[in-house]
Amino acid sequence: MTFRISDDFVQSHNQSRVADLQSDFDALGSKLARNGVDIEALTLRAQGFAVATPSWGAGTGGTRFARFPGVGEPRNVFEKLDDCGTVNQLSQATPTVSLHFPWDKVSDAKELKQHADSWKLGFDAVNSNTFQNQPNQAESYKFGSLTNQSAAVRDLAVAHNIECIELGKALGSKALTVWVGDGGNFPGQLNLRGALERYLDSLKQIYQALPDDWQVFLEHKLFEPAFYTTVIADWGTSFACAQQLGDKAKCLVDLGHHAPNTNIEMIVARLVQFGKLAGFHFNDSKYGDDDLDSGSINPFQLFLIFNELVDAEIREGSSFNPAYMLDQSHNVTDPIESLMGSAIEVQRAFVQASLVDRDQLAAYQASNDVMMAARTLRRAFQTDVTPILDMARFRSGGAIDMINCYRESGYRQQKAEERPASKNASGSGIV
Amino acid sequence: MTFRISDDFVQSHNQSRVADLQSDFDALGSKLARNGVDIEALTLRAQGFAVATPSWGAGTGGTRFARFPGVGEPRNVFEKLDDCGTVNQLSQATPTVSLHFPWDKVSDAKELKQHADSWKLGFDAVNSNTFQNQPNQAESYKFGSLTNQSAAVRDLAVAHNIECIELGKALGSKALTVWVGDGGNFPGQLNLRGALERYLDSLKQIYQALPDDWQVFLEHKLFEPAFYTTVIADWGTSFACAQQLGDKAKCLVDLGHHAPNTNIEMIVARLVQFGKLAGFHFNDSKYGDDDLDSGSINPFQLFLIFNELVDAEIREGSSFNPAYMLDQSHNVTDPIESLMGSAIEVQRAFVQASLVDRDQLAAYQASNDVMMAARTLRRAFQTDVTPILDMARFRSGGAIDMINCYRESGYRQQKAEERPASKNASGSGIV
Amino acid sequence: MTFRISDDFVQSHNQSRVADLQSDFDALGSKLARNGVDIEALTLRAQGFAVATPSWGAGTGGTRFARFPGVGEPRNVFEKLDDCGTVNQLSQATPTVSLHFPWDKVSDAKELKQHADSWKLGFDAVNSNTFQNQPNQAESYKFGSLTNQSAAVRDLAVAHNIECIELGKALGSKALTVWVGDGGNFPGQLNLRGALERYLDSLKQIYQALPDDWQVFLEHKLFEPAFYTTVIADWGTSFACAQQLGDKAKCLVDLGHHAPNTNIEMIVARLVQFGKLAGFHFNDSKYGDDDLDSGSINPFQLFLIFNELVDAEIREGSSFNPAYMLDQSHNVTDPIESLMGSAIEVQRAFVQASLVDRDQLAAYQASNDVMMAARTLRRAFQTDVTPILDMARFRSGGAIDMINCYRESGYRQQKAEERPASKNASGSGIV
Amino acid sequence: MTFRISDDFVQSHNQSRVADLQSDFDALGSKLARNGVDIEALTLRAQGFAVATPSWGAGTGGTRFARFPGVGEPRNVFEKLDDCGTVNQLSQATPTVSLHFPWDKVSDAKELKQHADSWKLGFDAVNSNTFQNQPNQAESYKFGSLTNQSAAVRDLAVAHNIECIELGKALGSKALTVWVGDGGNFPGQLNLRGALERYLDSLKQIYQALPDDWQVFLEHKLFEPAFYTTVIADWGTSFACAQQLGDKAKCLVDLGHHAPNTNIEMIVARLVQFGKLAGFHFNDSKYGDDDLDSGSINPFQLFLIFNELVDAEIREGSSFNPAYMLDQSHNVTDPIESLMGSAIEVQRAFVQASLVDRDQLAAYQASNDVMMAARTLRRAFQTDVTPILDMARFRSGGAIDMINCYRESGYRQQKAEERPASKNASGSGIV
Repeated sequence: MTFRISDDFVQSHNQSRVADLQSDFDALGSKLARNGVDIEALTLRAQGFAVATPSWGAGTGGTRFARFPGVGEPRNVFEKLDDCGTVNQLSQATPTVSLHFPWDKVSDAKELKQHADSWKLGFDAVNSNTFQNQPNQAESYKFGSLTNQSAAVRDLAVAHNIECIELGKALGSKALTVWVGDGGNFPGQLNLRGALERYLDSLKQIYQALPDDWQVFLEHKLFEPAFYTTVIADWGTSFACAQQLGDKAKCLVDLGHHAPNTNIEMIVARLVQFGKLAGFHFNDSKYGDDDLDSGSINPFQLFLIFNELVDAEIREGSSFNPAYMLDQSHNVTDPIESLMGSAIEVQRAFVQASLVDRDQLAAYQASNDVMMAARTLRRAFQTDVTPILDMARFRSGGAIDMINCYRESGYRQQKAEERPASKNASGSGIV
Repeated sequence: MTFRISDDFVQSHNQSRVADLQSDFDALGSKLARNGVDIEALTLRAQGFAVATPSWGAGTGGTRFARFPGVGEPRNVFEKLDDCGTVNQLSQATPTVSLHFPWDKVSDAKELKQHADSWKLGFDAVNSNTFQNQPNQAESYKFGSLTNQSAAVRDLAVAHNIECIELGKALGSKALTVWVGDGGNFPGQLNLRGALERYLDSLKQIYQALPDDWQVFLEHKLFEPAFYTTVIADWGTSFACAQQLGDKAKCLVDLGHHAPNTNIEMIVARLVQFGKLAGFHFNDSKYGDDDLDSGSINPFQLFLIFNELVDAEIREGSSFNPAYMLDQSHNVTDPIESLMGSAIEVQRAFVQASLVDRDQLAAYQASNDVMMAARTLRRAFQTDVTPILDMARFRSGGAIDMINCYRESGYRQQKAEERPASKNASGSGIV
Repeated sequence: MTFRISDDFVQSHNQSRVADLQSDFDALGSKLARNGVDIEALTLRAQGFAVATPSWGAGTGGTRFARFPGVGEPRNVFEKLDDCGTVNQLSQATPTVSLHFPWDKVSDAKELKQHADSWKLGFDAVNSNTFQNQPNQAESYKFGSLTNQSAAVRDLAVAHNIECIELGKALGSKALTVWVGDGGNFPGQLNLRGALERYLDSLKQIYQALPDDWQVFLEHKLFEPAFYTTVIADWGTSFACAQQLGDKAKCLVDLGHHAPNTNIEMIVARLVQFGKLAGFHFNDSKYGDDDLDSGSINPFQLFLIFNELVDAEIREGSSFNPAYMLDQSHNVTDPIESLMGSAIEVQRAFVQASLVDRDQLAAYQASNDVMMAARTLRRAFQTDVTPILDMARFRSGGAIDMINCYRESGYRQQKAEERPASKNASGSGIV
Repeated sequence: MTFRISDDFVQSHNQSRVADLQSDFDALGSKLARNGVDIEALTLRAQGFAVATPSWGAGTGGTRFARFPGVGEPRNVFEKLDDCGTVNQLSQATPTVSLHFPWDKVSDAKELKQHADSWKLGFDAVNSNTFQNQPNQAESYKFGSLTNQSAAVRDLAVAHNIECIELGKALGSKALTVWVGDGGNFPGQLNLRGALERYLDSLKQIYQALPDDWQVFLEHKLFEPAFYTTVIADWGTSFACAQQLGDKAKCLVDLGHHAPNTNIEMIVARLVQFGKLAGFHFNDSKYGDDDLDSGSINPFQLFLIFNELVDAEIREGSSFNPAYMLDQSHNVTDPIESLMGSAIEVQRAFVQASLVDRDQLAAYQASNDVMMAARTLRRAFQTDVTPILDMARFRSGGAIDMINCYRESGYRQQKAEERPASKNASGSGIV
């Protein structure tokens, strides 16, 4: 039996922090009450928030230049679940895990599900991988996978995606996320339209294999690994393809996959309006697909995205249920710390956006009172909702001070012993 | 009667240049023949190329900081037609003009049409203007036009667009281009979805007013004059709206209206594939919507766009007929010189793209011979097709050396006398 | 005598708000005390913060497409001072005004100074204008000013700058800010090195005219109004020129004048390290030089800039005294509201950055505890310091609720009557 | 003895191509002569052009997602020299190789030098590597190398750089290129100024170790592998550091290391003017540091850079001698083909820039004839100088049709047999 942080340890760690938390919570509650906001309702709402962790995020990421792993890195999907379970234990905000195949493929799905159950973890969307060649793979993805010129390669890639659906079914997943790195590095390498036609042909086959209650999430990305043209490079292409495929196909938004200066919250609003928002891969970035911790570079942007999501929730009602996942590369931090911290930053944006008085905002908008409309959003963002987040976590059984609780638990050191470094780490840290 | 360059003058100017041209043309012809390319066919194709000039492009443009007009600027639409006619006379590549209302509104359409006929000019798409208030306008566009919160403002903007259709019908135009600067400068100013819903409502009314043989071109733009969110900011939004409206609605691509690093040729390919490419506003840029002369900053990008267009022409056949227009701001050059030169640079890209051996290219692509595929495009681009362009112009009656022919004709000096500077220049130079 | 808001009105407006403020202030004080932060010291520090307003910011700005002025716009420098004085009266954070010549030129400096004294306003850096032609100007700046090919034009531009110094001396200014739009729209238009050589020659003459206790601030900008190359386009060029000129020349940073994705706080750190930081033109932007209200688009970036400034203050001591100015274009808001709001957002970043425990941060950095270092900054940013800002304002005699106090005072309506719209507004809104 | 293409094979391959080449060369010669340009002088100039190849460029590159190696990849520095020698044999434009340590470290420098001599190859600048940990390295570069918080790490990195100088001395190199990936992924991770102070301390030690006739090249890069702040992120920082170090320190420009929209040719002009241009790492890019083949994405930009270099050569005379190197990642092409092709594209830009009539250009600039100045550059760029490049290669003993000559030689297939795939390939393809 491997080491787990005991719930008793968490509670005892909370003990010395709960009085200050209550005091901050009460002060904030009084302040919010003056504006007609019920802190208890908001806290309950915070407790209901959930974002999936990616199994591969439990390992240290890297760049094409180097990867500097830490100690105690998970060596297989069971150990990844242990780490993701720990993240959820302390954060109480990440009840599901998103797997990546073939990295996380096991022969016995039941065993994996039981392991997840022991952590009270469920499985979010599954991810296929056709951007790497696997050992002894019959065909190469060097020149594309689902869009390859060769039917044999496309068939292989399609079959892999269908296998991912099968694997996911056994685990209780309800969606397949398809990201392909397919594209070209040079003008002329691809016939741009031909490549997309092949993509649609391949996707139609995958779509056919979807169970009735499944969805397929199309993920676009401006560039990398292709550096001149990427087949699914922007939300427009993703949207047009999702339309071609049918109702079960939707568009996934990764915050780092856009051109510089792109207004991402507007893309969110458009996808909601036209019924094609699948969900998110959350992270943050300053330059490209930097895959930094969510909310670490531009927290106001994250808030504005949730501002759209809360608006959508009100308009669309309970049918609006986008998939939330963290998708980060933890190159210089302990992945567990980054995942916990990032989950809470996403939750923070959700709670702040929930603070906005939307009737008031609509009234300012209707009268073109730009100043007050802008200040209404900004005041919600400026509100320090940390006591709500801490209290939500505390009430759900998590740690008030996650990072220090985790550090003092000795989890990482225990894993360093349990998990000697391996050369065969499967897919850790690639995002 | 105002000054016009005589055709005799043009022909005599050509006289001393035709021998060298013939020599260069023959040398290029021999070289192309070695690769199985018939220079005569290509020259005929060049002669068939046409791109519209924008009436407002005949004036000096400016920035929010200043405008430095030249001498002899056109003061009304008749004078603008004189300048555009001169551009076509010398370049033989710009047989139509695109008008902008209310700047170019006249009470007597017949008179205007006769004036155009005297220049052998036709009328391309007409453009509406709801980004400025006109004197004594009943409502203000400060907070939007087709998307304004106020129904009265939206009605005014819709009515103006419908009036544009009426004005265009009298002149023989077949399309209305709708560009709105509507958007917001601050998060919270607009409900992002609400603004697009109002846009669609307004556009549906305009769409209803379209004659059977007309189209409406939706033009997107990332930013400016709105600096946080623009209602029609990207091709995805434009595309989704065109779908909502119907078959007569298509998407216009202005080369300067995209986020940094955007692969514009891919957008072209996508719009062609999904049947929604309206056409182009050609210009060039390094930073934003700089509206510089076409081909002056990144000529290879212009070539790659035409590479897609020639590919589309082959796939789609004669039904493929996108609208081409120059849309530039001539801040530091003589607008007539810039328009002539830019028309030829666009024509150059068209001819270079026509040089590509597409069977050969497809074969390289099919075998993933990236190097040879890339070189195939590049060799076409590197080919100096100037003799073809010059010969096409010469054979059609234009000037071999347009700029010097224009300068030596004394046209601008004549206009400086005919057209004393006016404070009331209507819309010159705004793009 | 024109309308002014009475101090009594402000105090009575505060009356109903002071109890809630005190309660929020106390709650925050308790929380900060737990972390060893003295809220009273911080409030005093907030009271000491100052940022200049630009005289031209009191008018409505616009774009090359249109300008939509509001009512009651100031028509001359005296009325601009009235508006800036009102901004300072309510915000207590903008005790100085930055003038722009020739827009703000008056024949009687003493009269202007007395008017400023009546508002307790001082004068910050003066700004020259060689990006526009003035009526009847002997030479044109169309092809550049300080870098023009023509010595006569350069002489004119140099003389204007020297005149600005003279005008500034009479008012008590201590610095001249030089921003030129000089550059080229096309490759080939300028010899890039030649243009900078002429710039340096011109600047040396201006530098010679600086009094001993004056400085000259060089302001760089990536693009606009020049769209291919700008002579002083980046901080590297600005820095090299400031070195060539001497100790009195420093580099001014406008937050909107950088390439996409630029890390501005790093530029700040570099300029501080090498002794050349002049100060800031504060604003915010999403795309280009959007000149939006400070802190409205990316407030975390503003905080990170102040994080560097507080670090610099500790390292450099009292000699570190950069110039702070707002430089915004108020296209859709009441300029007075935007200036007040923006001043407080800059002050907010200053106070938040002052919250950071720098010894603790240095310790985390020294041990490569990236997670805790990042969280240390983020926690300071997440702290809602509004009660400190409000209390600082209240204690200094300003308005707790600036916007509503201003609105309820009827100032704008009074000005609408006092100042009927004028066609000759001098330079309002251009930034 | 391993396979080499025989010179006889090259000459016989040329045999069937020389007549067409001569014909194209003569036609171009006649045309150029009309403009007073001597094609023979230009061809001689082309023959004198040289750009170094990077040893690591001989292997297939990759991304953080995957690497798809080809067959016959070089497994050590001797095999890399074989490939680089072949590139020079056919292109006659790459007489030197740039090594990267420790990847290319050998115990016997004399043996390596003899091997290079057998290819008539010399050695260009040597490159240090402190962005990766080497097996059994005493300290880790995870948190920086020359800027690390730990003196022990910095000492290790400094010692490695000094060792590189020693290794280079034995081979005849005259410069050390220092690129560090040091920086931070999160605000707060680094004290921005502290990191640069440590950089300067480390560089001073390296600078001390430079022989009298050596230079050190500082290479800046906006981002990657660090994603929030990079210590040497822009030319301004590089320039300031080079100044601090002394005359032997200069700034190296990699074309892919800039923010979006950056005008690189202006940076070149600035570095020349202030005496700090070291040279170039040539490649092309559309998004980030894409490391695509030179001239493949934006050939006009490459031309404009050489336009500055030719201008500098005229101003500075023979003392102007920047270092030229290719630095590309060949992910989907045969590296040998990419290197040959790219060398010629750089040579093309050099020859085209040499075509410009600089007196004429200066005259247009002096009279603000923007149109003709711009056209002067553009006409040089539009000139198809391929016959000059081919003739220069032919006369120097290279292949007229490099790619096909290489393919028909069977070199790659021979190497596939000689060099079975190795898991221990040292540093191939990382750029």
